[in-house]
Amino acid sequence: MLTGGALTVGGVLTGAAVTGEAPAPPKSTVDYGAQAVPFHGRHQAGVETPAQAHATFLALDLRPDVDRAALGRLMRLLTDDAARLTRGTAPLADGQPELAHVPARLTVTFGFGPRLFDAAGLAAQRPATLQPLPAFAIDKLQERWSGGDLLIQICADDPVTVAHAQRMLVKDSRSFATVRWTQRGFRRGRGMQDDGVTQRNVLGQLDGTGNPAPGSAVFAGAVWTDDGPQWLHGGTTVVVRRIRAELEAWDAADTVGKEFAVGRRLTDGAPLTGQRENDPPDFAAKNPIGFPVISEFSHVARAHVVGDRQRIFRRPYNYDEPPGPDGTADTGLIFAAYQRDIGAQFLPIQRNLAEADLLNEWITPIGSAVFAVPPGCEPDGWIGQGLLA
Amino acid sequence: MLTGGALTVGGVLTGAAVTGEAPAPPKSTVDYGAQAVPFHGRHQAGVETPAQAHATFLALDLRPDVDRAALGRLMRLLTDDAARLTRGTAPLADGQPELAHVPARLTVTFGFGPRLFDAAGLAAQRPATLQPLPAFAIDKLQERWSGGDLLIQICADDPVTVAHAQRMLVKDSRSFATVRWTQRGFRRGRGMQDDGVTQRNVLGQLDGTGNPAPGSAVFAGAVWTDDGPQWLHGGTTVVVRRIRAELEAWDAADTVGKEFAVGRRLTDGAPLTGQRENDPPDFAAKNPIGFPVISEFSHVARAHVVGDRQRIFRRPYNYDEPPGPDGTADTGLIFAAYQRDIGAQFLPIQRNLAEADLLNEWITPIGSAVFAVPPGCEPDGWIGQGLLA
Repeated sequence: MLTGGALTVGGVLTGAAVTGEAPAPPKSTVDYGAQAVPFHGRHQAGVETPAQAHATFLALDLRPDVDRAALGRLMRLLTDDAARLTRGTAPLADGQPELAHVPARLTVTFGFGPRLFDAAGLAAQRPATLQPLPAFAIDKLQERWSGGDLLIQICADDPVTVAHAQRMLVKDSRSFATVRWTQRGFRRGRGMQDDGVTQRNVLGQLDGTGNPAPGSAVFAGAVWTDDGPQWLHGGTTVVVRRIRAELEAWDAADTVGKEFAVGRRLTDGAPLTGQRENDPPDFAAKNPIGFPVISEFSHVARAHVVGDRQRIFRRPYNYDEPPGPDGTADTGLIFAAYQRDIGAQFLPIQRNLAEADLLNEWITPIGSAVFAVPPGCEPDGWIGQGLLA
Repeated sequence: MLTGGALTVGGVLTGAAVTGEAPAPPKSTVDYGAQAVPFHGRHQAGVETPAQAHATFLALDLRPDVDRAALGRLMRLLTDDAARLTRGTAPLADGQPELAHVPARLTVTFGFGPRLFDAAGLAAQRPATLQPLPAFAIDKLQERWSGGDLLIQICADDPVTVAHAQRMLVKDSRSFATVRWTQRGFRRGRGMQDDGVTQRNVLGQLDGTGNPAPGSAVFAGAVWTDDGPQWLHGGTTVVVRRIRAELEAWDAADTVGKEFAVGRRLTDGAPLTGQRENDPPDFAAKNPIGFPVISEFSHVARAHVVGDRQRIFRRPYNYDEPPGPDGTADTGLIFAAYQRDIGAQFLPIQRNLAEADLLNEWITPIGSAVFAVPPGCEPDGWIGQGLLA
């Protein structure tokens, strides 16, 4: 099992000088920490960017006196912070500038919640379907994980980088806003698996199969907004749902039952009618006694959409908070879905799922929030300028 | 800033097929995930092992009816789980066996708290100085972060691996114990910096300079217990303190004040009398007007010990919990220190620090727990066998 560069053998760093003092550092063969994702451009980074290992989703509530002009000042400040942090340099007034030098593919992505438009006196500029999602029968939404005026999504491959960026952005937001909720998520660490493989969520399922491919025309057509209010063109919308995994019940189910509910094999994510993860599911296939191989109530059937413009782009993170005293897990998914238009794309899928997805027995949405994600900006601009300037 | 193997350029995975479907996974140049640390041996892993990126420290309280025989059953079960998980295989009755296949240098280290010896009817076998630390004037200890009968320290370079191991170990402990506290910590991710460099904590300080070198005779003499109760020989003791960083006040201090308090430069960790991080501090050096360059009240002076057998081995992790509504940080250190004997090594240092360390202005201990860490075991044995069998 021991492969690669600087290795541990029996707990001892090989190649290290064995003296009474700290060993001379052996060199890594990679430096993922130095990798940076450009902040500026047509779109904000952190959507199309291959998902980093760590994420914090922060939702802020604007203070009562914050108007359009104050929002402009806030977004200028946060844009400047984000542009510096993502290239590995310390923002102005950074109390720990030594922590800023490992960008580790840091991205900072901003989103505007429904009430921000009222605060700015710009209700007419709100996208028509940017409003709190209707309540679904399966939901047990908690206020503490729902809503918010301003989303700051911070992603990087290094947890110290995320923590430091979060500290700076929260500090600079304090005169304008309070923290409504903080959700921290993770995926497999960088370099732990091959880049680009579909990852497993806390239920052990491959999660993200069939996503539109970043960089493709299908992705652009599904994700980047190109109608409605002009200021949002080149941006997108995001739905952030906190979905608790009912792990005690899931553990008690057998593999056949789990695979029937999902419509895919747990081992490799292939549809029950196929051989490989990316084989298209065959919803017409019947088993020897004439029933569909993939149930019409399975997750894969309920989530299926026809038409590339109807697709959504999922970029989920796991969460895992401390277990209860009796050992009950507090774990699940921070489900983040990006699409041109929430009403045209996310809602029909969610209605299908809420109605009859067999997987609902093992998952419970406990938080829900929606945000419009403005387009990117150039070095002389700032995020949200098209709306707020 | 773009270096290495599979890279992102402008948010797009290079080399990926740009179609409407998920891209074929490009190969990583490293596979840190496959690296495994041997579980069996003279000492438990997770002490001398170079610190992994992620850690969970779990403290369990034994249920009232758990006696020596039940403790033996529990430790046999947990030992078996840990031995399997650390080599990347699923334990018996794993509900998500698909998550077990990335060991990522996973270590699971067990420790016995003071009350466990009473529960086992083995009070005479408790090391003399294994007892709750005396209260220091600087402490603001909270019950929720203190004490505990059984420590399970889970460390790995991948956060999914830590979460999955935690889930399995908690599940298998449930009939024997309840969860008292869970502390989750992180360091720089694997591959983000050169292996072996001293890392910075959330205050931006290099933290760990001057540690005894793993694998050295000095380390062995300071850390592995070789007197007192026979069953602990080859084991050690650990002090786990939760130390809150008063980041608001620290941010407000200037660099000169911070460096005077620490006795080291923030930029490179060198003592104020030296040029490089590992230069020994010169406590006799005077400045032009006759005062010591390194204050006798500085952290480095207060923490200094004479004699290799007096040293402790620090293996700290950062913690960063969600900020308060007003943006106040909830961040600091999970300070884990390993030593042969708490009374002979940790306590004298801690008394010195509590008395007069200038750094105390910016740090507050809010949790404290002590555990005896049994020696390791061979494949036919189990952790704690020498005490409990």
